[in-house]
Amino acid sequence: MIDEILTLIESKEFVKLRSTLSDLNAPDIALILEEIPQEYILRIFRLLPKELAAEVFVEMEPETQEHLIGIFSDIELREMLDEIFVDDTVDIIEEMPANVVKRILRQSDPETRSQINKILNYPKDSAGSIMTIEYVDLKADMTVGQAFDRIRKTGVDKETIYTCYVTDSNRHLIGITTVKELLLCNPEEKIGDIMETNVIFVDTFDDKENVAILFDKYDFLAMPVVDKETRLVGIITFDDVIDVIQEEHTVDIEKMAAILPSEKPYLKTSSLEIFKNRIPWLLLLMLSSTFTGKIIGSFENTLSACVALTAFIPMLMGTGGNSGGQASVTIIRGLSLNEIGMKDILKILKKEFFVSLFCGAVLAITNFAKMMLIDQSIIVASGQDPVLVSFVVSLTLLATVVCAKLVGCSLPILVKRLGFDPAVMASPFVTTIVDAISLLIYFEIAMSFLKF
Amino acid sequence: MIDEILTLIESKEFVKLRSTLSDLNAPDIALILEEIPQEYILRIFRLLPKELAAEVFVEMEPETQEHLIGIFSDIELREMLDEIFVDDTVDIIEEMPANVVKRILRQSDPETRSQINKILNYPKDSAGSIMTIEYVDLKADMTVGQAFDRIRKTGVDKETIYTCYVTDSNRHLIGITTVKELLLCNPEEKIGDIMETNVIFVDTFDDKENVAILFDKYDFLAMPVVDKETRLVGIITFDDVIDVIQEEHTVDIEKMAAILPSEKPYLKTSSLEIFKNRIPWLLLLMLSSTFTGKIIGSFENTLSACVALTAFIPMLMGTGGNSGGQASVTIIRGLSLNEIGMKDILKILKKEFFVSLFCGAVLAITNFAKMMLIDQSIIVASGQDPVLVSFVVSLTLLATVVCAKLVGCSLPILVKRLGFDPAVMASPFVTTIVDAISLLIYFEIAMSFLKF
Repeated sequence: MIDEILTLIESKEFVKLRSTLSDLNAPDIALILEEIPQEYILRIFRLLPKELAAEVFVEMEPETQEHLIGIFSDIELREMLDEIFVDDTVDIIEEMPANVVKRILRQSDPETRSQINKILNYPKDSAGSIMTIEYVDLKADMTVGQAFDRIRKTGVDKETIYTCYVTDSNRHLIGITTVKELLLCNPEEKIGDIMETNVIFVDTFDDKENVAILFDKYDFLAMPVVDKETRLVGIITFDDVIDVIQEEHTVDIEKMAAILPSEKPYLKTSSLEIFKNRIPWLLLLMLSSTFTGKIIGSFENTLSACVALTAFIPMLMGTGGNSGGQASVTIIRGLSLNEIGMKDILKILKKEFFVSLFCGAVLAITNFAKMMLIDQSIIVASGQDPVLVSFVVSLTLLATVVCAKLVGCSLPILVKRLGFDPAVMASPFVTTIVDAISLLIYFEIAMSFLKF
Repeated sequence: MIDEILTLIESKEFVKLRSTLSDLNAPDIALILEEIPQEYILRIFRLLPKELAAEVFVEMEPETQEHLIGIFSDIELREMLDEIFVDDTVDIIEEMPANVVKRILRQSDPETRSQINKILNYPKDSAGSIMTIEYVDLKADMTVGQAFDRIRKTGVDKETIYTCYVTDSNRHLIGITTVKELLLCNPEEKIGDIMETNVIFVDTFDDKENVAILFDKYDFLAMPVVDKETRLVGIITFDDVIDVIQEEHTVDIEKMAAILPSEKPYLKTSSLEIFKNRIPWLLLLMLSSTFTGKIIGSFENTLSACVALTAFIPMLMGTGGNSGGQASVTIIRGLSLNEIGMKDILKILKKEFFVSLFCGAVLAITNFAKMMLIDQSIIVASGQDPVLVSFVVSLTLLATVVCAKLVGCSLPILVKRLGFDPAVMASPFVTTIVDAISLLIYFEIAMSFLKF
């Protein structure tokens, strides 16, 4: 495809090029433009019908957008901005350096400019920061026929026309209706009589994650956003919500892996930034393992009497960490899907207790068999009875798995109760706690069963 | 709210109850019905307008659905099924025991029954298994006016009317158009002249995860599904795609935490099932840590000469595991968002190398300082020089972090290249490999610097 387009440019077959491009979808054209030499981009761009050009522009990488804005004439930039929805303009602005932002604002019409500034001022992660202002508003005393006239007149510039918002003279949101309902109604009927008045809406300052949960629950196409006086100020459409969901997933996964969340794709993030996102938790977790070191240090006599015991520390700590991680990750996901609440803690503890007994028993028996078959020589070299040491390690394993699962499942709920984000309490943190517990159990059991 | 409804039932104020309920959204009514005594559910259900009742039914928990189906009369069940979209009926059927499924199929009309059977036969996770058949189809020779007549006549039963599909006489998909476009066109225009012919579609056997990626890319409201002969057989709507995205995310997180994916919410899964999902990886990882045990066993002489070295094994292994986990999780997420590909491997290795040097250096220096301040006594008790041991541990830390990050970032890409799912290669597996490497480095460095 790219080769075909380059050939068409070089042979100056612009009519054919234009028709080839017009058949493509905007995201695909944007991908092609990322791959061709920069000097051709503007030429191709000027061939596209205006509306398609704007759609393509929105889909491009920030670097290419910046390059294009730099070589656009003022008129070209203004025409482009006229075609772009305000929420997309805001997204673009957020990636641009200050001088480009100034140029974009200068070329927007005054009303749009003030809207952009308002949206830019909403807190990051708020509903206001992702909304757009291109919605269809109707009045309750319009007829269905008049509503269609209004949609036909203004609809072309709206991000969605399928959900229409009914406002009173003070712009308070009093109802919603859909094009489907309008199509099935008599043209003489009043909007006020057919509109749905039990409207679900969000406040500009609501968390965008909350917006995603409401979308998922109610299967909306678009969600109205109101200010403190319930005046309609914008809408959020489902495509932006899919982006929010994907972004939240990335953040959740990063937190679970003890990384500070970052907004940029990996390949666009500098090594220094990646370093800054990763080092805080690494440092904290490293320092917190001082405890495990201290525990081992204080049992130095036990260990020097039976060095073989050391050989099983990694297995015990690893299995404990994995067991605890499984429980904590399951609970964290359940919390974030609202499937699990504080009220379920007893049910969860009971469930995890049984699960950990089953898992611990299977692991302990397998481990006992494995040690008797494979590890006899290490143990005998330490001057201990293989059966007794295998028993000590296996019993520790069982106790560790039970503790790990109980800590792993209860810590996230506790943390959420305290008002923090449970995702940061996942595997690494649980692991550190479980490590310390498993070592204490190990040495206690070893000292009661083994003779030194 | 629940109290209010219970009072209304008990005082038999059914008119008021009906109007209270009709003001609510289906998902909220479903939540209320889960909370009230079972004997009232059917009574409330019969008060609801038919369409709303069907929407509420779809949102309810499988247990409540089964209970209701059991007490519905045949006529009630048939009327309800008439109102439910086929994809939702399929979702319900998948949760029901065989006798209930038989009853549902018996009460569906023959055409719907054959459609349900077809959808049930598509492989799990395929596009066909989540599609629905209630879409608006138009013909190319219709006028816009005729298209609206058709939408008005059939639209009430369609899952979406906003995207309309144009098919030829053999049901081949030849174009799409939207209600927005239709509204902005002259009623005399032909559908064939205004339809978009470059249609993005999926095959019934395509992976549903792939459908989600296409939705995210093109911001569709609905995606047409075709069979092997490109005949239109159904559509997938955006609300189902949000469910797919959430489900895939849960599966990804479970895999990263070494859990076999499960479909059911945590609280609905029995302890035995949870055990079955968790034990395989726990066993595998426990047995694989035999290697680390062997490594420690083979350096038993080194350790018994300086037991203090044991005290730092958990810290080294923990930090190595966390460092590798950070890298692998970042890369896995990038792979699943299509931000990273096989071709980026050199760029990634270079980036991770620098990141790991920075992280390793900071951690090593901090650790050196910490050991000199806090751990002197343990080391001296072992008869070693604190400066030298701190140096050995810190140098090992640096080397471990570099190895961990390089293993962590390259393993997922390698695994994907081999055709497996990179998510299963995340933290726990990386940890096991990194554990072994870090121990080998530790003992090598210790033996070259320390005198025994």
